[in-house]
Amino acid sequence: MTGRSLRLGAGGEFDRLRAIFAALGAAGRDLGDDCALLPVGGRTLAISIDLSLEGVHFRTDWLSFREIGWRATAAALSDLAAEGAEPIGVLVSVGLPGKSRGKGKGRRDPATEIMTGVGAAARSVGAKVLGGDLVRSGRYLVDVCVLGLAARPVRRSGARPGDGLWVTGRLGGAGLALAGLRAGVRLAPALRRRFARPTPRIAAGRWLARRGGRAMIDISDGLAGDAGHLAAASGVGIEIELERIPRWPGVTPLAAARSGEEYELLVALPRSFGAAGARAFRRATGLPLTRIGRCASGRGLRLTDDGRSIVAPRGFDHFPVR
Amino acid sequence: MTGRSLRLGAGGEFDRLRAIFAALGAAGRDLGDDCALLPVGGRTLAISIDLSLEGVHFRTDWLSFREIGWRATAAALSDLAAEGAEPIGVLVSVGLPGKSRGKGKGRRDPATEIMTGVGAAARSVGAKVLGGDLVRSGRYLVDVCVLGLAARPVRRSGARPGDGLWVTGRLGGAGLALAGLRAGVRLAPALRRRFARPTPRIAAGRWLARRGGRAMIDISDGLAGDAGHLAAASGVGIEIELERIPRWPGVTPLAAARSGEEYELLVALPRSFGAAGARAFRRATGLPLTRIGRCASGRGLRLTDDGRSIVAPRGFDHFPVR
Repeated sequence: MTGRSLRLGAGGEFDRLRAIFAALGAAGRDLGDDCALLPVGGRTLAISIDLSLEGVHFRTDWLSFREIGWRATAAALSDLAAEGAEPIGVLVSVGLPGKSRGKGKGRRDPATEIMTGVGAAARSVGAKVLGGDLVRSGRYLVDVCVLGLAARPVRRSGARPGDGLWVTGRLGGAGLALAGLRAGVRLAPALRRRFARPTPRIAAGRWLARRGGRAMIDISDGLAGDAGHLAAASGVGIEIELERIPRWPGVTPLAAARSGEEYELLVALPRSFGAAGARAFRRATGLPLTRIGRCASGRGLRLTDDGRSIVAPRGFDHFPVR
Repeated sequence: MTGRSLRLGAGGEFDRLRAIFAALGAAGRDLGDDCALLPVGGRTLAISIDLSLEGVHFRTDWLSFREIGWRATAAALSDLAAEGAEPIGVLVSVGLPGKSRGKGKGRRDPATEIMTGVGAAARSVGAKVLGGDLVRSGRYLVDVCVLGLAARPVRRSGARPGDGLWVTGRLGGAGLALAGLRAGVRLAPALRRRFARPTPRIAAGRWLARRGGRAMIDISDGLAGDAGHLAAASGVGIEIELERIPRWPGVTPLAAARSGEEYELLVALPRSFGAAGARAFRRATGLPLTRIGRCASGRGLRLTDDGRSIVAPRGFDHFPVR
């Protein structure tokens, strides 16, 4: 089985990528998954690449260089988590401005700091830094390619009508932190950590793959956007009950459904998976696992608020207006 | 065997990368090779990543977007060639300016054009485009991660005193083309093609690996710079006879030794490999293979001109002053 991995953002980015891969003759088959899958020597390699740019994905006045390296790597590793894969290693390209800011002020070299963050994130899930490239650039950039092994890869496309739809952790923290940073508010340590040092849900993804997860995706474009991607890939409809979404304190259900770069997992599980399964998940991973809706026949995404349909919010857009 | 892959440019870049990998606790072991090697299911995977940036590695007024995609991919595939590996696939991150230039003037979408070039370069060596990421960026960028299988990986570190030092193809074309582009001179088609659509030497690298190549590197930093890297990794001295360097017409030996981004292969072969071997190589690949020097005990690089030592020119610098 060979799949193609594409990071599919909202709207125009998705359309553009579709056009590009159509030009490559790859349209329609496995288009858009968290990882590409490659059979090697009887194993299945899962691979993904994830580009983080200054001014788009991070700002150097919001994050330390070490956090920039960690966050970019965690974002890429999150794709392995969504495949149920075990990380092996990462390769990383780093772009650095000519006179790297922060030097000569008693701070360490930004390149070293970024790579230290990359290395720490990789080590946290048992992966090695295998290689890299370093280039002078107008702005900072960190592009991380991750490799893992997937004993039982979980695609986006395996959800079936009747499956339960579950989410790990609590949503809305990343969006709340981002709003705080934009407003110049000092963040509480836990909230700041949530944004600056997200934990890739590797153990959770592997647990869910072993326990029969049918389709999985990481929440990088926001729950609503990624639920839509999962629904489209699986050819099912998805209903989400907004009030069931587990949230950070102070986050509304709609904000939680829209918050991007959450790096939690959205997973379709057989109807037989229930509260006992969620308790076993929590014992194994320390995380909550919450049923927020279900898969149904049909197409598209339906959000309900106490049983009433509401209009789906737009997903997180990787192409912000600058 | 696990190796670490680093693109090591001249001088400061090399030092900076060494500091970074030292910070990761990876110093001294296999530091700096064309590819990282990863054992997977009894096979050896070779992986590398190579970042190409507008204004550093290419200019949009010198190359078409399709050529930009081809060239970035060929540069990355060249690392697989230097490992003697067989390409499998590529993943590519593309950065695009907000209002991509070239639209609305009857030209196709730059992203599609870049990816078409990426796909063509990958296909030319039997590799697939496995995945990608697309992000809005201040300038164009193309970061290519390549994966291949190496039945008998050839590291930089295997050269021994007495080995002959050989080079594929002819050198100096890339430097000559670059000088012409900078001067606004219209290039002859073959010279332009050499710069815009370099051929990754995959078949050559695999042939040389099968025929006992002891150490190999691709010439991306210039012959002098990369010979120095090979010498350092192998713990040998290298002597190159300048007048033996196969050159493009109109290129001096020193210019040929300095010309970067050539994407030819420099290989150490046992002393027993001679003219008959070079003829067999030419029959198999269509390329010349020329003995330009030898490995000796000692350290460092010695260039001779009709038997007289000359000072080694600096290698190609990936950090040009802008």
